[in-house]
Amino acid sequence: MLDEIREQPAALERTLKGELRGAERLRKLFDGNRPRLIMLAARGTSDNAAQFGRYLIEITTGIPTTLAAPSVFTLYKAEVDLRGTLLIAISQSGESTDTNVVLETGRKSGALTVGITNEPKSSLARLAEHVFLVRAGKEKSVAATKTYTGQLLSMYMLAYALGAKVSLDDLRRLPEWADAALKLESSIGGLAGRYRFMDHTVVVGRGLNYSNAFEFALKLMETCYVVAERFSSADLLHGPIAMVERSFPVFVFTPPGVTWPGLRDLLGRLEAMRAETMIITDASNSDAVKLHGRSIALPLKLGRKSYPVEELYTPIPYIIPAQIFAAKLAEEKGLDPDRPRALEKVTRTL
Amino acid sequence: MLDEIREQPAALERTLKGELRGAERLRKLFDGNRPRLIMLAARGTSDNAAQFGRYLIEITTGIPTTLAAPSVFTLYKAEVDLRGTLLIAISQSGESTDTNVVLETGRKSGALTVGITNEPKSSLARLAEHVFLVRAGKEKSVAATKTYTGQLLSMYMLAYALGAKVSLDDLRRLPEWADAALKLESSIGGLAGRYRFMDHTVVVGRGLNYSNAFEFALKLMETCYVVAERFSSADLLHGPIAMVERSFPVFVFTPPGVTWPGLRDLLGRLEAMRAETMIITDASNSDAVKLHGRSIALPLKLGRKSYPVEELYTPIPYIIPAQIFAAKLAEEKGLDPDRPRALEKVTRTL
Repeated sequence: MLDEIREQPAALERTLKGELRGAERLRKLFDGNRPRLIMLAARGTSDNAAQFGRYLIEITTGIPTTLAAPSVFTLYKAEVDLRGTLLIAISQSGESTDTNVVLETGRKSGALTVGITNEPKSSLARLAEHVFLVRAGKEKSVAATKTYTGQLLSMYMLAYALGAKVSLDDLRRLPEWADAALKLESSIGGLAGRYRFMDHTVVVGRGLNYSNAFEFALKLMETCYVVAERFSSADLLHGPIAMVERSFPVFVFTPPGVTWPGLRDLLGRLEAMRAETMIITDASNSDAVKLHGRSIALPLKLGRKSYPVEELYTPIPYIIPAQIFAAKLAEEKGLDPDRPRALEKVTRTL
Repeated sequence: MLDEIREQPAALERTLKGELRGAERLRKLFDGNRPRLIMLAARGTSDNAAQFGRYLIEITTGIPTTLAAPSVFTLYKAEVDLRGTLLIAISQSGESTDTNVVLETGRKSGALTVGITNEPKSSLARLAEHVFLVRAGKEKSVAATKTYTGQLLSMYMLAYALGAKVSLDDLRRLPEWADAALKLESSIGGLAGRYRFMDHTVVVGRGLNYSNAFEFALKLMETCYVVAERFSSADLLHGPIAMVERSFPVFVFTPPGVTWPGLRDLLGRLEAMRAETMIITDASNSDAVKLHGRSIALPLKLGRKSYPVEELYTPIPYIIPAQIFAAKLAEEKGLDPDRPRALEKVTRTL
C-alpha cells in the first residue's frame, strides 16, 4: 500500500499525458451539444471518486449531476429515461458486476456512456462508448490508493471535456503537489502511534473534499478496522454530533475557500466539547494552521484567489496524507493493510 | 419520543386525508407533461425521507431522481440548469436554512418547486409553489419520528402524482400496518436491555429500505450516542465489512422481494464471522424468519406477489420497530431521547 501511495506522482503524470487528447476530443463533441444530466455509477473507492465528480462537474459546468443507485437497475429493473444523459461508470478492475449492468442498461435507455478504468482489457472498457484509462499501473494492494487519485484526475478531465473552466496548466502541476504531500510521510508516521487504540472516529469533509471524508473513512475501516463514520459538517450538525463526547477523535479536511467558515465553526464546537480534532490543510489556509494545534499541513499554497473555486485543486494532494496515515496506523495496530480480512481485490455484487 | 411514535397511525391517516386531493391535482398537471428530472433537497431525518423518495420515484416512474448537494447552491453558488426539473424540498420545521436556499435558487434556475413540511406557516411553505403538509401535529421530541413516516407517505403521494402505479387502497392501509407495528412495543422493550453496552453498530438496508438504515442509524446516534454506520449490503461488501469482527452488532432490514437474496447471502457471511445480527422483517418473508433466531418480525404479510414491487409498502411499518428500539435503548442507557445533548429541534446550516 505504501509503495503504491508513493507511485502517485508518476501515475498522475501518466494519466494526464495518456488521456488529455481524448478529453480534447470529447470537449469538441460536447461543444454546443451538452448532456442535460450526468449520472455516475460505481462502488467502493470508485464510488468515492464518483462522489467527487458529482460535486466537481455540477459546480464547474452547471449540469445537474447524480450518483446512480445501482439496485434500481440491477434488482428493480426499472426503465429509467436516460435520453440526453451522460452515464459515467467507474471501476478500477472494470469487472464490478453491478456497475457494468448499470452501464449496459443505461446505454439501452438512451445514455451516452463513458467508462473510467485501470484495466484496458476489462468488460467495462469493452462496454463503454468512450474510455478513460487511469494508467496507474497494476494495483496490488486491496486498499485502493493510486487508482483513487487517478480517478479524481479523470474527473477533472471529464469536467474539462464538458466545458468547465479547469486549467490544464494546473492539472499539470498535480503530480508535483502530490509529491509535496508525500514528503509528509515520516511526520505522519510519528503521529499515527497516538491512535493505536482508536476504535471509532468521524471524518468530516465538505463540498469538493466531501468524497475525501468517505475515502479516508473507508481506508480506516478496510485497513485499520476502525469504525469510521463520514459526514459533511452540515450533516454532522443535523443529529450525529450528539454522539461526540470528550476525547472522541474527529478528522477534518480544511481547505481554504468557501467551506472554511462552516468548518471553523464546527471545529470550535468540537473543541468546546473536548473532542480530539486533527485537521488536514495546506499553508494557504493560515487561519486553520494557526487555530489548531493538531494538524497535517501540506507545505504548499493550494488556495489561490485567482481560481474560480479556491479549493478546486486540493482533493488530490489532501487525500495523500490520509492514505499514509491509514497505512501507518495499520502498521501500528499490527495489521497488514495489503490484505484486509474478509476482502478480495475485485468485489462482485448486484 | 415514545408518545409521538405511538401517534403515527393517526398522523398517517391525517396526512393521507388532507393531501390526497392535492396529489390528484398534481397528477393532472403532470399528465402528459412530466418533469425530466426530480431533485430532492433536505437535511437530517428529512434527508433520509428524501433518500426514500429518490428510490421510490425513480423505480416507480422511471424519471431520473437525485439528491441535491446543498453546498453547490449555498457555498459554491453554482448556476445549475434546472429547467424541466421538479425540485422537492423537505423540512419538518420548514426553517432549514440551506434547504430553503436550494429551493429559492432552484426556482430561479427554472425548476418547478414542491415543499413538504409539517409547518403550514413556515418559510418553506411560503417559498414553494406547491405544498404538501405532513399534518403530524407538533413534534416536540428533538428526535423526529412521526414526521419521518409522514414524509415517507408524502413521497408515495408524489410518486402517485407523477403517474406511478401506487395503489391508493394500499396507502389507506398504512395506518393499520403502522398500528400492527406498534403492537411490538413490549417485546422490543424486552430486547433492548441486551444492547445496554453497545457503543457501535452497523445498520444495513437496501433499495426502498436503504433510507430506513440511515434513519435507524441516525436515531441510534442522536438518542443513544451509539456510533452507528449505515450501508447498503453491496456497499458493506465493498470494503467496510473488514471492520466487522466476532460479536460486532449488525441490524438488517429484510423485507421480502428483490433485495432479499443479497441480504440473505450477507447474513450468511456475517454469521460465519460470528457477528451478532438482528433482522427487522415481516411474516411474508418466511425464509428470513426461519433462518435467523434474533429477529423483530411484524405480524403482517406485507409482501404480496401482485404488487409491482414486492416490498413497496414495507418502509413505513419497518421503521417503527426501529424507532421503538432506539427509544427503549436510550432508556436502558439512562438517556433522555427527547433532549439529546448538543442538539436543538431546528438546525440551521449553510
